[in-house]
Amino acid sequence: MAASGRSRAGRLVVFEGGDGVGKSTQVRLAARALAEAGVEHVVTHEPGGTRLGEALRGLLLDPATGDVAPRAEVLLYAADKAQHLHQVVRPALDRGAVVICDRYLDSMLAYQGAGRVLDVEDVAAIGAWATGGLVPDLTVLLDMDPARAVGVKRGRDRLEQAGDGFHARVRQGFLDLAARAPERYLVLPARTGREHLARLIRHRLTGLGIEGLRG
Amino acid sequence: MAASGRSRAGRLVVFEGGDGVGKSTQVRLAARALAEAGVEHVVTHEPGGTRLGEALRGLLLDPATGDVAPRAEVLLYAADKAQHLHQVVRPALDRGAVVICDRYLDSMLAYQGAGRVLDVEDVAAIGAWATGGLVPDLTVLLDMDPARAVGVKRGRDRLEQAGDGFHARVRQGFLDLAARAPERYLVLPARTGREHLARLIRHRLTGLGIEGLRG
Repeated sequence: MAASGRSRAGRLVVFEGGDGVGKSTQVRLAARALAEAGVEHVVTHEPGGTRLGEALRGLLLDPATGDVAPRAEVLLYAADKAQHLHQVVRPALDRGAVVICDRYLDSMLAYQGAGRVLDVEDVAAIGAWATGGLVPDLTVLLDMDPARAVGVKRGRDRLEQAGDGFHARVRQGFLDLAARAPERYLVLPARTGREHLARLIRHRLTGLGIEGLRG
Repeated sequence: MAASGRSRAGRLVVFEGGDGVGKSTQVRLAARALAEAGVEHVVTHEPGGTRLGEALRGLLLDPATGDVAPRAEVLLYAADKAQHLHQVVRPALDRGAVVICDRYLDSMLAYQGAGRVLDVEDVAAIGAWATGGLVPDLTVLLDMDPARAVGVKRGRDRLEQAGDGFHARVRQGFLDLAARAPERYLVLPARTGREHLARLIRHRLTGLGIEGLRG
């Protein structure tokens, strides 16, 4: 994933949103634009993105794991983030790369908040500790009415066994997070054409000082 | 592990100490005394004690897992504790059983504190959140100069690859925790005869209101 060297500090760009909103497509298009511009970048994702993280992801999504205590679930996601930050994100940022991450802290907060079992401020504090307080330079939130999301394979894993009310609360959770720090978010309607979305995202990346992207 | 029913609230009795101090022997002797007295009890341990916990324990102790970020390690131990509390400890206490647990929060704090990488207050806060603030009714700390500990298979797993200075700091960490709340601790010199130690522990359990134990 390496391209030309950049001596300046890296950038963390996160893609967030519910299931089926097209995050992976936009991650791919953003990565392609960075590659074409010769910008060193790393594409990664949470949960997972490390060997430990993939093992944890497997445990969390496998219905055979059975009843996972709500606090245990949060702590496992936080452990995944701590490992990912340590092993992947921080080293890439330190060498000046752009890190494109499919899901980050907001997903944990939106999904846990939607579950309404735990105090979201507690979850946020644990997530901040896990990541050493690293905040993305930009979070692209692809927003969509969950009833219209495509490609959601309901019933496939534990999280997706939740109902529509749950997904509506997840959506609102993401929007609430964006509203708290609008300068660090780009909220886009996910049902817009993908090339149009990609252009809006490239424009915002240029605004972060990432040069050479086509318009 | 169930014996006669007890209608009163349960008791959480934890055994702590470094590797090789004889915790498992004293856990076994205490459990036998409870069984002989007809007291409902559960014997369990951390990390592990649940299916999820055993999977996490395997990940943490397996040298093949490689470099685990210090914060990720804490969060995995905390996840194990949250699951164990939810699935094993709390249900047993709620039905009035005595829970005998081989290691609990103090081990996380003593080992992490000895590592000197993280702020122990942060680790304590995460541990308290993981366990919903549940504090043992009694912690039996088996104390020994780590240079004299027997049965420690050095180099066998990741934690045991640490040096003697580390184990001395672990010991001091346990003693410091006991000094903060002496009313909830029974600190015993581990190199005392095992039957004598067991009698001292039974005496203290009687003081917790657990009746019928032989002297």
